Amino acid sequence: MSHEPKPGSFRHSVPAGDNRARLVCTDCGYVRYDNPKIVVGSVCGWEDRILMCRRAIEPSLGFWTLPAGYLELNETTESGAAREAWEEARARIEIERLLAVYNIPRISQVQLFYRARLASPEIAAGPESTEVALYRWEEIPWGELAFPSVRWALDHDREARLGGPPGVRTNPPGETGGMR
Amino acid sequence: MSHEPKPGSFRHSVPAGDNRARLVCTDCGYVRYDNPKIVVGSVCGWEDRILMCRRAIEPSLGFWTLPAGYLELNETTESGAAREAWEEARARIEIERLLAVYNIPRISQVQLFYRARLASPEIAAGPESTEVALYRWEEIPWGELAFPSVRWALDHDREARLGGPPGVRTNPPGETGGMR
Repeated sequence: MSHEPKPGSFRHSVPAGDNRARLVCTDCGYVRYDNPKIVVGSVCGWEDRILMCRRAIEPSLGFWTLPAGYLELNETTESGAAREAWEEARARIEIERLLAVYNIPRISQVQLFYRARLASPEIAAGPESTEVALYRWEEIPWGELAFPSVRWALDHDREARLGGPPGVRTNPPGETGGMR
Repeated sequence: MSHEPKPGSFRHSVPAGDNRARLVCTDCGYVRYDNPKIVVGSVCGWEDRILMCRRAIEPSLGFWTLPAGYLELNETTESGAAREAWEEARARIEIERLLAVYNIPRISQVQLFYRARLASPEIAAGPESTEVALYRWEEIPWGELAFPSVRWALDHDREARLGGPPGVRTNPPGETGGMR
């Protein structure tokens, strides 16, 4: 199950009317436009606790993350974030507002994190998690976070809960690390 | 220059470990993950005027739009919005903040619009525009807008300029129409 094209059948060339090289099939001329990917996730609160998941899959297997994953076709960013919370933690959530837009250009990702409330504290590990938990701030396993943007989103959510400035956050200054 | 795979060589099936049908090549097993696309654009102000472009290409050829287009690989959303302003209107812009995130799930698009300032009023039609203009609000060709989200972004930018609530806007209630 590879994301790479069949070897030999695609070449980099500039299609007519375009201005940069794309993967073009040498047999049929099909242009494979590679596009950045959208990751949608949430910081889900229950009282003073936050929902986290221990990853059952690579990358960062065994490390803790927020429920998040790739947006699917024909899905809104809000419904994608809710789907990921269900898939990874069997959590029913209510989206409150957009918390942050992070850019990870090295891996061509745009990540949208929402603030959300758990509809109930009933959670369970989905197929991509070995364990799920509702952590108080001081209980969060800071040394075992899966990705830099998990830390960013936790910090930005806390700022917002403590009455910080309104508006959507972006990458912390100088930070470009990713979720995957 | 088609976005469709070569007829006959791809079939819909569920890859091992996945939970929905993808296009899989019947020859080599290559899985073509189709993903939603990210459109980045801007509402660029110069004094009390806004930069608009008349489209030289389909869809909506001849109609007026804001500078916007697909985010490229390894690009941040801010730099993509600035690149589009340059490509379509030869405009140098300074991004101020994220104005809106619109979802157009029917065509699998997520659109990010930024508020921006023109660094100078020198603008010119790029290859995808027949004409560019700096319009006052009452001069905007409201009957000739290219896409619903052009109207949304103009309205939301005006709300923001008139001191409306902070925070990022989303689709107007009940609206799901797109940019492309």
